[in-house]
Amino acid sequence: MKVKVIVTLKNGVLDPQGKAIQQTLNGMGFSDVNEVRQGKYFDIEVNEKDEKKARIKVENMCNQLLANLVIENYKII
Amino acid sequence: MKVKVIVTLKNGVLDPQGKAIQQTLNGMGFSDVNEVRQGKYFDIEVNEKDEKKARIKVENMCNQLLANLVIENYKII
Repeated sequence: MKVKVIVTLKNGVLDPQGKAIQQTLNGMGFSDVNEVRQGKYFDIEVNEKDEKKARIKVENMCNQLLANLVIENYKII
Repeated sequence: MKVKVIVTLKNGVLDPQGKAIQQTLNGMGFSDVNEVRQGKYFDIEVNEKDEKKARIKVENMCNQLLANLVIENYKII
């Protein structure tokens, strides 16, 4: 089954990339954009039919590789 | 209000970054990972209280800047 994960920077961690996107949007005329934060998205196809087991596997992947837990959070959606 | 967007590569578009992640996961012992596709995630704070209007604005941002519609799809979540 397919498991989808979003990895985002924790609150308070600076996001210069998001800031650059926000400034570009403002410059393009989208003046009511106050903040942009960019994150990563992963679509993971796991060979596992049980949803709960697949989820646990993906959590392990996030903890070990996909997210840097010092500065990032992850969410399985 | 906050609008969340996921930008993903279209089906059929090669994703070498996702492939590298998949191979790394396989090498780490997650042998049942068949495919990984990586995308981008944006958290956009728009100064607009009407949900429908905010959504339309973010759609315009996606069409003009955030997504390359030749090879990418976007989804407002």
